[in-house]
Amino acid sequence: MTVAAALDQIRAIVGANGILTEPGDMAPYLAEWRGRFKGSSPAVVRPASTEEVAAVVRVCAEAGIPIVPQGGNTSLVGGSIPYEEGREIVLSLSRMNRIRDIDPLNYTMTVDAGVVLTTIQGAAADVDRLFPLSLGAEGTAQIGGLISTNAGGINVLRYGNARELVLGLEVVLPDGRVWDGLRRLRKNNTGYDLKNLFAGAEGTLGIITGAVLKLFPRPRQSETAFVAVPSPAAAVELLARLREATGDAVSAFELMSRRCLEFAIRHVGGSFDPLSEPSPWYVLTELTSGTRSDAFREAVETALGEAFEAELATDAVIAQSETQAKQLWFLREAIVEAQKHEGGSIKNDVSVPVSRVAEFIERAQAAVEAACPGIRPTPFGHVGDGNIHFNLSQPEGADTAAYLARWDEICHVVNEVIFALDGSISAEHGIGRFKKDEMPVIKGPVEFDLLRAVKAALDPKGLMNPGKMLP
Amino acid sequence: MTVAAALDQIRAIVGANGILTEPGDMAPYLAEWRGRFKGSSPAVVRPASTEEVAAVVRVCAEAGIPIVPQGGNTSLVGGSIPYEEGREIVLSLSRMNRIRDIDPLNYTMTVDAGVVLTTIQGAAADVDRLFPLSLGAEGTAQIGGLISTNAGGINVLRYGNARELVLGLEVVLPDGRVWDGLRRLRKNNTGYDLKNLFAGAEGTLGIITGAVLKLFPRPRQSETAFVAVPSPAAAVELLARLREATGDAVSAFELMSRRCLEFAIRHVGGSFDPLSEPSPWYVLTELTSGTRSDAFREAVETALGEAFEAELATDAVIAQSETQAKQLWFLREAIVEAQKHEGGSIKNDVSVPVSRVAEFIERAQAAVEAACPGIRPTPFGHVGDGNIHFNLSQPEGADTAAYLARWDEICHVVNEVIFALDGSISAEHGIGRFKKDEMPVIKGPVEFDLLRAVKAALDPKGLMNPGKMLP
Repeated sequence: MTVAAALDQIRAIVGANGILTEPGDMAPYLAEWRGRFKGSSPAVVRPASTEEVAAVVRVCAEAGIPIVPQGGNTSLVGGSIPYEEGREIVLSLSRMNRIRDIDPLNYTMTVDAGVVLTTIQGAAADVDRLFPLSLGAEGTAQIGGLISTNAGGINVLRYGNARELVLGLEVVLPDGRVWDGLRRLRKNNTGYDLKNLFAGAEGTLGIITGAVLKLFPRPRQSETAFVAVPSPAAAVELLARLREATGDAVSAFELMSRRCLEFAIRHVGGSFDPLSEPSPWYVLTELTSGTRSDAFREAVETALGEAFEAELATDAVIAQSETQAKQLWFLREAIVEAQKHEGGSIKNDVSVPVSRVAEFIERAQAAVEAACPGIRPTPFGHVGDGNIHFNLSQPEGADTAAYLARWDEICHVVNEVIFALDGSISAEHGIGRFKKDEMPVIKGPVEFDLLRAVKAALDPKGLMNPGKMLP
Repeated sequence: MTVAAALDQIRAIVGANGILTEPGDMAPYLAEWRGRFKGSSPAVVRPASTEEVAAVVRVCAEAGIPIVPQGGNTSLVGGSIPYEEGREIVLSLSRMNRIRDIDPLNYTMTVDAGVVLTTIQGAAADVDRLFPLSLGAEGTAQIGGLISTNAGGINVLRYGNARELVLGLEVVLPDGRVWDGLRRLRKNNTGYDLKNLFAGAEGTLGIITGAVLKLFPRPRQSETAFVAVPSPAAAVELLARLREATGDAVSAFELMSRRCLEFAIRHVGGSFDPLSEPSPWYVLTELTSGTRSDAFREAVETALGEAFEAELATDAVIAQSETQAKQLWFLREAIVEAQKHEGGSIKNDVSVPVSRVAEFIERAQAAVEAACPGIRPTPFGHVGDGNIHFNLSQPEGADTAAYLARWDEICHVVNEVIFALDGSISAEHGIGRFKKDEMPVIKGPVEFDLLRAVKAALDPKGLMNPGKMLP
């Protein structure tokens, strides 16, 4: 079957409104929002139901047309963008945006893959439940993509990654059959864990079209603190103490360096220094409790007081209102924004065991400074998960293009430290196009063979998001 | 290579102490503790290290000898017992019983597969941490087997199944290579989730030899309550209210019928009725908090008070001491023991969505009573996970052998209700030998094909625990 003939069949399945072939219409689906990854495609297909997805995939399987599944297209590693050759169709899930069912008593919600994360958060809140996944792109990112990339975000410490928030999946397989794994069960020991195979597979094994999500009780009380700490080591120790002292009530624990804060104050309106004296490092932490009580806030205050005595913290402010808490969280977002205004920034999304975070930052800073004198590291991130966004602003006054041309070289310097500390070079952003060529190296021959065996078993024709995750 | 030659090579690898071939020595490894499953084997091999396991597996792969991996041999579905034909060797992990590393700051422990669960619980407590997996066989069950079967137990509601308690695995693959996936990372988005593929695979894809386990802060306060409830529906509603009112502090929530309690009082010394008036149903629940405060107990008391007003509960006792809490938990264990003294008991380990527990119990009771008048259902279990042990004692005075001969027929009656309610016929015990022939039926053709594709991809020669989980 020719591509043109296949597109005719697909048009018959999804209707004229469900297929885009004009370059102008397709453009938003073919480029990453930062412009780092671009591709081309004969068509962007937008099915409205699982049955339509399945029918489209059957046509593609017959015609040998590869498919790039796409959600909100917020990937930072080019996972949702086709290659330049123009062989792949883009299959967008955005028209599948229905909440199928909410079961508050079972603490579950069943949704189409194309529902945007904030919509899910809101629907859970409407029935007095919490869906805890939360991250910067939540107003655009769709749940199918979030599950396919095993998204992280700020609440992983308490609630886990996307994988851990899913009870069941519906997946259109590479041959167009539908796997109905939409189970709403907490316990089900009958066979291999297919759910976790498709979750995090970056669309390379099939297309997630629906999911059963876990809900939780909504917290009744939240305490947000901005804490000056002398070092990353002190931050890690503080985290362990807070977890112990509050009975694992820490839902977020974000580390940031003084430079991060200074960049924010310099460039992003509304940023401020919450404390009177500068500190080399800060922690922004949120602790939540299911019950309202003065005792909870007292426990937080006592734990911080003990941290002062142990010289793990030098100053702190606890938000006195929800508004003040939001101002503190604004700083966390401003850090990301601010880095754009300090010239080129080379980004690393890495993780190490939590107990090695301090050693990682120290060694990685020394290594990149040796490789590029004057480089300005701005590490920040989710210390509670060992996940540091080890971003590196260019030396002051340096040529931006020349600096960014050293991206691979400098990432390599960071990665060497990561390997030495048994860490991961992609903690939450995934592999996509961006890091696929690293896979044989970081996995080693045994694990790489296992990954290829799984891919070959489930997608023998190699039509699902080819050239993503695996080279 | 002949089997005898292979055994010679294996003896050279593990030493004379590492291999048993005398029937008397092998007997404990070849029978399930209840005597329901028996097998035979040319040898029980007990390697002392991962390297020895790998070397043994290489010999078996070359000689075409199938392997049954075995931990504490506490499986209830014959998963760890070879077949009668005597072709398979048993590979016991029991000599691999070393705790390799404890990292309190990273909240992780790295262990050999053969470490017994209570040893792990104790080692965690020694560093003021909690390893929450807990179940009846914990004094014998080994962590490798617990992970291979994705064990459940009483704390799943709060902390998840075994799969969710594992960060990394070390696995000897069917060709004798070692996959070192012993990562201590909370976040690592680099490829398919191999960890969750081997976890819960019942030893059919490889042999787990080591694991990195998640630890948690130890709870500082625990409240145990024994609550009389009018119905399973009331119990489910009570659970949702307790979760909300205490901020998800419910760590266990066990339902039991009056008959369960009566059997315990009749047969097991130390059993008693904690309440003055009989109730058709009871809930034993434990709520834990990370901080010590009167407010927590007050929250529990208030929630129970509101449950009385809403007629979800009719009476309750909250343990006043740890001793009293233990006495209440003793009842839960006594229920299991007591059923042995009431003649034949047909057992079902099933699950449904939590919101359908009440409907399941009602429909299943009616169905089995219609099929077998006088049958005495004794449902109990982990309502918080939707997991009911729907056990069925024989009619009073019935012939035990004749009753037990109807096992398959009566389980089928229960399973029909399970299928109608989108449940699972094996919530936590797994498939093993016992339920493998059900797999094509309960999975349907699409999912069954996926399972077979995974098995064929990772164990192409079919030498890992053959005839378990998949027919």
